[in-house]
Amino acid sequence: MIGTGNIGTAHARSLAREISGAEVSWVFDADSARASALADELGAHVAPSAEQLIASSDAVVIASPDAMHAEQAILCLDAQRPTLCEKPLAPTVGEAQRVVDAELDLGRRLLSLGFMRRFDPGYVDLKAAIPSVGTPLIVHNVHRNTFAPYGLTSAGTLTNSAIHELDINRWLLDDEYASVQVIVGRPGPDTPEGEFDPMLVILTTERGTLVEIEAFVNAQYGYEVRCEVVASGGTLDMGDGSFITRRADRAVGHDVPELWLGRFGEAYRRELQAWVDATHRGKTSGATAWDGLVATITANAAVRSITEGPQAIDVPARPALYA
Amino acid sequence: MIGTGNIGTAHARSLAREISGAEVSWVFDADSARASALADELGAHVAPSAEQLIASSDAVVIASPDAMHAEQAILCLDAQRPTLCEKPLAPTVGEAQRVVDAELDLGRRLLSLGFMRRFDPGYVDLKAAIPSVGTPLIVHNVHRNTFAPYGLTSAGTLTNSAIHELDINRWLLDDEYASVQVIVGRPGPDTPEGEFDPMLVILTTERGTLVEIEAFVNAQYGYEVRCEVVASGGTLDMGDGSFITRRADRAVGHDVPELWLGRFGEAYRRELQAWVDATHRGKTSGATAWDGLVATITANAAVRSITEGPQAIDVPARPALYA
Amino acid sequence: MIGTGNIGTAHARSLAREISGAEVSWVFDADSARASALADELGAHVAPSAEQLIASSDAVVIASPDAMHAEQAILCLDAQRPTLCEKPLAPTVGEAQRVVDAELDLGRRLLSLGFMRRFDPGYVDLKAAIPSVGTPLIVHNVHRNTFAPYGLTSAGTLTNSAIHELDINRWLLDDEYASVQVIVGRPGPDTPEGEFDPMLVILTTERGTLVEIEAFVNAQYGYEVRCEVVASGGTLDMGDGSFITRRADRAVGHDVPELWLGRFGEAYRRELQAWVDATHRGKTSGATAWDGLVATITANAAVRSITEGPQAIDVPARPALYA
Amino acid sequence: MIGTGNIGTAHARSLAREISGAEVSWVFDADSARASALADELGAHVAPSAEQLIASSDAVVIASPDAMHAEQAILCLDAQRPTLCEKPLAPTVGEAQRVVDAELDLGRRLLSLGFMRRFDPGYVDLKAAIPSVGTPLIVHNVHRNTFAPYGLTSAGTLTNSAIHELDINRWLLDDEYASVQVIVGRPGPDTPEGEFDPMLVILTTERGTLVEIEAFVNAQYGYEVRCEVVASGGTLDMGDGSFITRRADRAVGHDVPELWLGRFGEAYRRELQAWVDATHRGKTSGATAWDGLVATITANAAVRSITEGPQAIDVPARPALYA
Repeated sequence: MIGTGNIGTAHARSLAREISGAEVSWVFDADSARASALADELGAHVAPSAEQLIASSDAVVIASPDAMHAEQAILCLDAQRPTLCEKPLAPTVGEAQRVVDAELDLGRRLLSLGFMRRFDPGYVDLKAAIPSVGTPLIVHNVHRNTFAPYGLTSAGTLTNSAIHELDINRWLLDDEYASVQVIVGRPGPDTPEGEFDPMLVILTTERGTLVEIEAFVNAQYGYEVRCEVVASGGTLDMGDGSFITRRADRAVGHDVPELWLGRFGEAYRRELQAWVDATHRGKTSGATAWDGLVATITANAAVRSITEGPQAIDVPARPALYA
Repeated sequence: MIGTGNIGTAHARSLAREISGAEVSWVFDADSARASALADELGAHVAPSAEQLIASSDAVVIASPDAMHAEQAILCLDAQRPTLCEKPLAPTVGEAQRVVDAELDLGRRLLSLGFMRRFDPGYVDLKAAIPSVGTPLIVHNVHRNTFAPYGLTSAGTLTNSAIHELDINRWLLDDEYASVQVIVGRPGPDTPEGEFDPMLVILTTERGTLVEIEAFVNAQYGYEVRCEVVASGGTLDMGDGSFITRRADRAVGHDVPELWLGRFGEAYRRELQAWVDATHRGKTSGATAWDGLVATITANAAVRSITEGPQAIDVPARPALYA
Repeated sequence: MIGTGNIGTAHARSLAREISGAEVSWVFDADSARASALADELGAHVAPSAEQLIASSDAVVIASPDAMHAEQAILCLDAQRPTLCEKPLAPTVGEAQRVVDAELDLGRRLLSLGFMRRFDPGYVDLKAAIPSVGTPLIVHNVHRNTFAPYGLTSAGTLTNSAIHELDINRWLLDDEYASVQVIVGRPGPDTPEGEFDPMLVILTTERGTLVEIEAFVNAQYGYEVRCEVVASGGTLDMGDGSFITRRADRAVGHDVPELWLGRFGEAYRRELQAWVDATHRGKTSGATAWDGLVATITANAAVRSITEGPQAIDVPARPALYA
Repeated sequence: MIGTGNIGTAHARSLAREISGAEVSWVFDADSARASALADELGAHVAPSAEQLIASSDAVVIASPDAMHAEQAILCLDAQRPTLCEKPLAPTVGEAQRVVDAELDLGRRLLSLGFMRRFDPGYVDLKAAIPSVGTPLIVHNVHRNTFAPYGLTSAGTLTNSAIHELDINRWLLDDEYASVQVIVGRPGPDTPEGEFDPMLVILTTERGTLVEIEAFVNAQYGYEVRCEVVASGGTLDMGDGSFITRRADRAVGHDVPELWLGRFGEAYRRELQAWVDATHRGKTSGATAWDGLVATITANAAVRSITEGPQAIDVPARPALYA
């Protein structure tokens, strides 16, 4: 486990305690005290560097800061280790391309990318049900955070938060994006000068489906992700799978979590189990480095669209390795 | 009652039977047999022409075909009759402007316009609740018809169906539109060549709120209107006020009506009662001729946007009569 | 209008302002100042006594305290006035029987009883949908008040509040009760010593359907009425017809009213319009004096059941007048 | 794994593939071909008898027919093996008591009982939320099966199906039952002569909370479990955690599964992981043999109540081992 922040710690505990077929043997973090605490908890060793961890482990999970993903992923590929890399693959297209190139040089797929929504029971049910309502024509997505965790920038909202929707809609539709347009209005009260929140992102796919994303990182009321597929014969609307309706104080309803783990905890578990299973079979699972590159290309086009209007999305030809 | 088609007949029966303070004394329709049948049912007289009906009545409801609204409205204004005119005020900006000019010449407001959603319990509750969630930033509207009633054209969808949303969002937000953009994707299976369905209409208001409308007239599954106000401190989502949840055949849910009257019957009743009450007090109720002109200007700009991209919405200065 | 308390005032305003075919000409209340205020508001006269009001009016609405209903209803019948009497017909079986006897002596039906739920859009939709799910086997009813309005007694809960369910389930099922049993547990925190709240009332109909009522008058969180019909091929569940879902403060849901008028306002309006229409045709509408007698017999059996266990419900043979 | 029917196979696959810290080494089934097929799939051995399986395994799961649970549980206790036994512990009170006695003789707890709802995210959330609404006064439970899987008898409904509610309400409320009453009405159309379906089971707890269970095994429309806790300051209502709302064919709603695994799959997984974790720590998890005895005593009292009216529930004093 490279990186022992929130998500790295959650992944490591899950691998150690509720995933069949895996053990956490080594952990690394630039903050060695934090790494030691987790290693002690799980009976693992602390590695002095990412390189040594990679050399000592059968398979690697990268949960370091976004800016280090690409470099560490390439180290893992060089060492031929099955790797699960947290999203995004890289903030810039150049870095993401280098990871893809490294894997292409290797000639086989070793990297799985942590777009965990592909394993979420809600999205899985949604995709399975699409044929029951016909041809998808529009997908309305809502992605609301209670507050922006690390400062709010329009670009960060697109490359770090809405990037989940950029990936999941390609997967839902089995389709590729042709263009993107970001439409902004008046910002909410806590938005820094010059930034926008919420934003409407509107993409057109190659087959002509419209994909809309409301990206709102200071929504204040809670964390919520919704997705409605509008098709030729009906629609499908993904809610939050909440079990409990409370009646109290002149209102009836259910709680909304403050943070995403309350909504996607089960998706993370299934993602990890699928990755461990795939690793034992010599396969990857879920999104690939190629999917990560496409997501980064799309997110960067969306960022340009804020100031420059509609953007075509130019994705290179898909290599056979990712067919 | 001028016009005894579906909506004229419904209005006449409601006025006769469930509205306090009104009687239906005269009806007119180009199809005189249809007019006679309704007159007999309600104990009213058949007028030989719209002009004679106007001359003989204390107040007039216009429910004729859209193309005749403006001309008949001007006749009513000339005769100084309180008038409730069905929406739209007119299909073209020129005609709508002539009605406004006629009322301005008269110097007092006599015309109420039948944007009945302003009286719908759902929209009324929605507007009342907006202060509880802060400043509106985005409004997501969905307007789906089971099928296009009179043939489908992209322009007709905007000027006849989505025009309801064009009016109701101004009213909800107490704000004016600055620009409009229509985004189209692949059409659904029953869409005639060269037309688009569904469409996304995106407006920006003068205060910067984004208003989105999904206009889908061949949605097939049923008639549905939804509206979600996304505000700085929370959101409000208007559903359909259905009472009954049915569990049967491996599913739980509720029925969706095929036609709009199943959703907006109560709005029509409240609209008529408010108009009768206002008429007794020498006032108008609900939307004005000015609101009708603005809706037609906006709808026509949206039509142009399908082929010409984003359009500014240029509304003339609001006359003092409509302040 | 006899009685100008909350419900009498609401009825009078509705009759004057939103009911077609009615005028409020006379009002009476033991509190003559209150009567005068309402009369002034509506342009009506104040009657010095119920007798004089009855003599001067074409039709009468009784909205006086429960204990006076029977006596005033008999005065109306003696004067042969079409009458809408608020529920219950009478608190005691003897008084209710005397009203029925008076109407039987008269030989025609003049009295309509204000069980307004029979006009509620929710219950009307529910009854209409029953054939779609088969044979009713169980009906689960929930009747919760925010707080007991006039002090809480177990008997009062049954004879004044749950009596709505006692009537509406007979109407829903077109069936008669055979027995009743009240089951009580530990009382809620605000329940006076020796009283019970909530209570479960379980009735069996002649055809064997089980009718369950949770009667809870200090539910604190709000006013709510629900009804689920469990049938051989599915179920139907009546909610509150709310239009607006609010997302705010880590929760999503909708408001619950504090008082019943927020839920049943439309039922009252439809009840009044139906009564006025029926009166013009020389008919009664909705529940009859007989229905009021049956409800009182059933409620009193339920009261006995609290201390004496299951009770048979012995209703006399239905007179032909009420067939 | 003793028993390789539906639930035994599901448990074995889950233990082998998605539970951390467990391997399936031996399987036994009276149908040795079925046992072999599963053993081959999972890389396990086939045991020639339950006894040999128990002797060869570190821990045992009993998923044999209900009638064999008690005997095999005693074998496991004799061999001092940590054991997870499917519910019910035994159909008769005598057998259940013998298992408890065997564990008491042993002097330590080795048996965990498969009341998996204690691990269901819905029930876990429900129990956690109870303090937010005050003191529980009534619990309404609904347990509906699409059809009775193995023939329908009133007794079987109570001892095999409603027994889940008998356990889970004790756990939800941390309370014990004092009495039970079963109320039956007319049976649904597919009910054999002399049997009842649906039934209302009403229990009173020692602290006075009313627990109601609608047990309906031929509900036809689908499988559904609901639970509403009515408390002094509000209520909590557990739904099915469905993610997807479909709009199609004039209706909006979501699918209901035909079978229980569609609702409780995650509960089974969490139950197994908790049991494996507890076993590694030398503990049991979830329900105990004592809970199984109480459930069987209660279910048998309910069966008697069908013909004999309200029954007291006499549970022996709780041994210190189960404190």
